[in-house]
Amino acid sequence: MSERVDLLIENAQFLLTSNGSNEIFQRYSMAITDGKISHIGPTGELATLNAAERYDATDKLLLPGLINAHTHLAMSLLRGWAEGLDLQGFLERVWAAEGAIMDEATCELGTELGALEALLAGTTTALDMYLNPMATHRGAVKVGLRHICAPIFFDSAGLDGLQWQERISFANNWPAELEKLGGPFTPIYLSPHSTYTNSPEHLSEIAEIATRLKARIHLHVSETAAENKEVWEKYSKTPTEICRESGLLAHPTIFGHGVHLSDSDLEIVSFTGASIAHCPSSNLKLGSGIANYKKLRASKINVALGTDGCSSSNDLDMFFVMRMAAHLVALNEGPEKVELVEIIRSATIEGARALGMGERIGSLEIGKEADLVAIDLAQPHLTPIHDIQALIVFAAGRGDVTDVWVAGEQVVCARRSTRVDSKELMERANKRIEALGALK
Amino acid sequence: MSERVDLLIENAQFLLTSNGSNEIFQRYSMAITDGKISHIGPTGELATLNAAERYDATDKLLLPGLINAHTHLAMSLLRGWAEGLDLQGFLERVWAAEGAIMDEATCELGTELGALEALLAGTTTALDMYLNPMATHRGAVKVGLRHICAPIFFDSAGLDGLQWQERISFANNWPAELEKLGGPFTPIYLSPHSTYTNSPEHLSEIAEIATRLKARIHLHVSETAAENKEVWEKYSKTPTEICRESGLLAHPTIFGHGVHLSDSDLEIVSFTGASIAHCPSSNLKLGSGIANYKKLRASKINVALGTDGCSSSNDLDMFFVMRMAAHLVALNEGPEKVELVEIIRSATIEGARALGMGERIGSLEIGKEADLVAIDLAQPHLTPIHDIQALIVFAAGRGDVTDVWVAGEQVVCARRSTRVDSKELMERANKRIEALGALK
Repeated sequence: MSERVDLLIENAQFLLTSNGSNEIFQRYSMAITDGKISHIGPTGELATLNAAERYDATDKLLLPGLINAHTHLAMSLLRGWAEGLDLQGFLERVWAAEGAIMDEATCELGTELGALEALLAGTTTALDMYLNPMATHRGAVKVGLRHICAPIFFDSAGLDGLQWQERISFANNWPAELEKLGGPFTPIYLSPHSTYTNSPEHLSEIAEIATRLKARIHLHVSETAAENKEVWEKYSKTPTEICRESGLLAHPTIFGHGVHLSDSDLEIVSFTGASIAHCPSSNLKLGSGIANYKKLRASKINVALGTDGCSSSNDLDMFFVMRMAAHLVALNEGPEKVELVEIIRSATIEGARALGMGERIGSLEIGKEADLVAIDLAQPHLTPIHDIQALIVFAAGRGDVTDVWVAGEQVVCARRSTRVDSKELMERANKRIEALGALK
Repeated sequence: MSERVDLLIENAQFLLTSNGSNEIFQRYSMAITDGKISHIGPTGELATLNAAERYDATDKLLLPGLINAHTHLAMSLLRGWAEGLDLQGFLERVWAAEGAIMDEATCELGTELGALEALLAGTTTALDMYLNPMATHRGAVKVGLRHICAPIFFDSAGLDGLQWQERISFANNWPAELEKLGGPFTPIYLSPHSTYTNSPEHLSEIAEIATRLKARIHLHVSETAAENKEVWEKYSKTPTEICRESGLLAHPTIFGHGVHLSDSDLEIVSFTGASIAHCPSSNLKLGSGIANYKKLRASKINVALGTDGCSSSNDLDMFFVMRMAAHLVALNEGPEKVELVEIIRSATIEGARALGMGERIGSLEIGKEADLVAIDLAQPHLTPIHDIQALIVFAAGRGDVTDVWVAGEQVVCARRSTRVDSKELMERANKRIEALGALK
């Protein structure tokens, strides 16, 4: 009798694996059992599996779920809130709005909305940094996103009103708190905000907690030249040097942005195995500069991709981020230096590795958790197909994603959430932002 | 008895006009009669019109159909054909493919595919430059695009095998030929390819024909620094100077690209009233450079936007082009210099003006031909709406377009062509490119 599987995804026109050999198969099927990929093979070979459920992927491209390695999902509520401003004007306007509405319930609501947007756009995992991480996690797991969040640290009481010692206690309990909320597996993270909002002493405290919790670190580093200058004036060190000296880089770390890194910073990042979440769209929009993707890669640094928050990005479309990353390689280094496979890997397996989940997700391989996306290829703007990688980076987009699975569960079906009522969620979001009226 | 109209588009959440005051209305309706906009007003006021047909725009944004001011639609067949190459390698590979397949029937097929893609993405008008313009026009009018094409001129026999005198005769008959093919109104254009493929003497001949035909001019100008150098070495003049001296600029002219224009070139362009079709995505992808949008605008030059052809763009998404144009303003000039209204106008009314159609299309105003687009706002990535212009430029995209009208005819309904069978067209395209197999 033939082998039983939970779901057989049949006859994909293309199946892009992001495996070690970057294999791309045609007319292939894959099976999912107990949330994991149990079989990958030619359509004919897998046809005899005894599948509880079948999905016809005839005109589809399957690819690993995209990984957004730096975002602030709750800021979906502030999409378009602060436009046409320089960085200082932008920050002042965003902070005022956050102060006005970002209580726990609103953090949950905004993250639910952002997580839904992300999933519908083919992103299955996001590394999120925001206030009230418990609330954000509740919002995200509700829609089915693989949502990595963390206690956030500011030296001064932030909008959440927490004093430093409260932050420390909260962080020490974080693994237990996180476990209560459920959702697909994610690693333990701690999120100091940055070296300009956290003192070196405080960063050392966080590094110690990370040692106890075996936690990973996510913080903003060298997003702008002004940040570097501010930190240098205070400490005569670069943000990266402070990260190293405070002990943060003894833990697996991801830098959000990493636009303005010196050659010596790059050596530190490379040597310590830290990763960089490259956010080209946000960096361009805010005039922060352009990270040199090829130089980072040439320095043997693992580069992931991120959208940043919706107040600067202004959406959570990782297809757009891939396209921007490729365009900026052409701008910095010349068009012949664009390697599409590298960009796609940054959005998939290298993103997973940056988050310490390279063994579990990020590629379509037997044994991995089934986080994947189906794209409808039967559309004029995706026809014909001379180069499937170029199609993904330069022509496909959010609107082409039809179905999404996280840990084997189909969370998006025919462009709709299987978990939540989008309309009701959008109504709640629209209602909530009415409170910003007075700030307009 | 109440007034009769053909179609009442009711209760749009937003109606962006691109009129002289850039008005944006909320909860507005518009009516179409005999292909033209006959009424615009608050939902309540227009509700009593006696409409033959009604369209519920409750959750929709209506905006003028987007105008792609520089493209080569038939090259949709070469999407992703030449990747990761410098300009010379790119051209060689594209020319080889064009030589292998671009006969008349294939030009028609590729243009039909490109025109369908454009319409589905909210573009209602395209200025197209390609071989076999009659064939391309047949393809485009079949799907309902407002398609402007023109006789194309190369000094040497091109892929179409035409000798110079044949090109001249064809151009002299162009208005009569064009009329035979029908389709929505478009102006008469002539398309010399460029100052590096047409001699000044030949350009003068074209200028004379333009005088006789009252034609407009569309050509490539200063796309790359190498082009400028080549032209300078031959003539000790810039491409723009050659355009002026050959008499081309005595006619309303649009430059495709205009990336590398000197200050004195800008003066010429401004003085003669020529327009520039800014193609940011293609320019970045091919490493051609970045046109300075704000500087062009400050020089009182009308700037339209274009995708260029799919071998370099790699799609025909004018939303992406708007977003890129805005990002590049932030890069060149700082984020506080981004004026969203300016970018949206470039893609609508200024595009129409660049093509000599500012009186007919490009804005939603009473008396204009009804070229418009409906966008579904009830989506997580478009929620909430703090700034509708930022939403259009930075968050909306091709996938959000649900319905499209050209000259009052609904050519896209619920994301599908009302004119052609997309599946059959894509199958023909896929079949045709098999002939490229030997060149892979």
